[in-house]
Amino acid sequence: MDTIMERALSGEPRALARLMSRVERMDEESAAIMKELYPKTGRAHTIGVTGSPGAGKSSLTSCLITSFRKMEKKVGIIAVDPSSPYSGGAILGDRLRMQDHALDSGVFIRSMGSRGNLGGLSGSTRDVSLVMDACGYDIILIETVGVGQSEVDVVKASDTVCLVLVPGMGDDVQIMKAGIMEIADLFVVNKCDRDGASKVAADVKVMLDLMPPRAWRPPVSLASAVRSEGIEDILTNIAAHGKYLADTDEGMARARSKIENVVEEILRREIAERVDSAWRELRGGAIEDLAGRRTDPYTLAADILDKIILK
Amino acid sequence: MDTIMERALSGEPRALARLMSRVERMDEESAAIMKELYPKTGRAHTIGVTGSPGAGKSSLTSCLITSFRKMEKKVGIIAVDPSSPYSGGAILGDRLRMQDHALDSGVFIRSMGSRGNLGGLSGSTRDVSLVMDACGYDIILIETVGVGQSEVDVVKASDTVCLVLVPGMGDDVQIMKAGIMEIADLFVVNKCDRDGASKVAADVKVMLDLMPPRAWRPPVSLASAVRSEGIEDILTNIAAHGKYLADTDEGMARARSKIENVVEEILRREIAERVDSAWRELRGGAIEDLAGRRTDPYTLAADILDKIILK
Repeated sequence: MDTIMERALSGEPRALARLMSRVERMDEESAAIMKELYPKTGRAHTIGVTGSPGAGKSSLTSCLITSFRKMEKKVGIIAVDPSSPYSGGAILGDRLRMQDHALDSGVFIRSMGSRGNLGGLSGSTRDVSLVMDACGYDIILIETVGVGQSEVDVVKASDTVCLVLVPGMGDDVQIMKAGIMEIADLFVVNKCDRDGASKVAADVKVMLDLMPPRAWRPPVSLASAVRSEGIEDILTNIAAHGKYLADTDEGMARARSKIENVVEEILRREIAERVDSAWRELRGGAIEDLAGRRTDPYTLAADILDKIILK
Repeated sequence: MDTIMERALSGEPRALARLMSRVERMDEESAAIMKELYPKTGRAHTIGVTGSPGAGKSSLTSCLITSFRKMEKKVGIIAVDPSSPYSGGAILGDRLRMQDHALDSGVFIRSMGSRGNLGGLSGSTRDVSLVMDACGYDIILIETVGVGQSEVDVVKASDTVCLVLVPGMGDDVQIMKAGIMEIADLFVVNKCDRDGASKVAADVKVMLDLMPPRAWRPPVSLASAVRSEGIEDILTNIAAHGKYLADTDEGMARARSKIENVVEEILRREIAERVDSAWRELRGGAIEDLAGRRTDPYTLAADILDKIILK
């Protein structure tokens, strides 16, 4: 084990940041680091916080940090912005609120952008959260900027997915968005002092009724992050969901299927790299030949497979 | 070339049906058939017709068949129902209306279910439509039962995607559904005699305005399939879209990216098969070992890759 890893494991923030940067490179060293850290993981509770821009996710995350710190939990935060080219220690522009915690040694904040994450943002976010887990962070909050497909992919890997809604933002559209309802383990209607908050909560419950019943029915909390109201209820729901994952067969099955997804994601990435390089070699004339019907997709696919697959 | 293929190419419907069944098996023979047929494809115009159940897609498809037959086009119909286990010649239960055309030798109807389509419904639908194309069908209508993710994947491969909406069915929800707006090349508001039809059309136009501008702006038609009203307008739009695909750089680029998708889809299928079989071998103890942190996903993925990938 090299010294950076030792120092990160012993809780040194600068070493932790450097270790994450190495992991994010997704090269051979990254895999070696992850192999070594993996046996030390599995203790943290990872919580994804997602929702439309302006829903108050950062304020809510900040409240959650404060509460978890009161319980003396070490908290890691991963702030994910697929549209940002920047990754690393820097706090994203509008997330000033989180700076309240920047001087707290029990809080570690990491920004993740999309540039330089060859293996995809969801893969690198997962690896960074595993690094935090191995290094003794009890709670890992993964906060997204928006609620697009890449954000959904990112938070899907969390133990508990918290979807933040607000009144007056075209809520039907917000909550019907692709695959969001399906992955949320708990709903928070933020800015609950605004008109329409209880209507949004009621709408969510109706939509949950319309969905196929699941072993875990996502609870719906009303909160006002800026007034620090309703936070206890959210914490109770997060804890209940953690207990559900740990104690029930469905919860265990879900945890296992997530581990399977990790293996699959690594495989996909590795294979995609090899397919891409074989395709780059052939691509030039191939598309023209296909369009001209001088070759066919089946022959071309077989040629690519011959270059990468064992017989 | 075997006799079944020869007879199918000469226009014999029973041979065509048998050829399709062979292609659907997705075995080595299927690939051989597709390789032989592919050079004969590229003439047909493939039109995907999708929309919520009850939107009147079958009635509309029937009107389109009638119109294309008047133009002396040979018409192939692929009726796709991902929830059905049946594939083959049988016409799906509630599609009686299409039986009007069952005795017309210029019309060939094929049902596609999900069972027995190892390579995925979208792959087998595409292969069946290529068989129709090679066998001289000028127009191929791919009609889906509903508008879920698998249906979207199926119609995405069409040259022209027609999304059918109706008033009074919770239209916001219908049209905002994942990825539907994005793939539609033309919109049809069916049952236009009902209240709210022009409101639905106006809503669609507003949503189109909100989306990033594209070279082809999908037109919106009002129609009543049961009264055979508004069909001419749809035919005009379909023809205009066909011309756009054939004549413009964007259209050509789109056609090419579809061919690329075919290659990728075949590759994915072939690779997934090999990954699955390697994974099945290791799976037994592997998940337990992973959950117990006795191994890690990186090592496991590397083991699987060693079994399938050339070094």
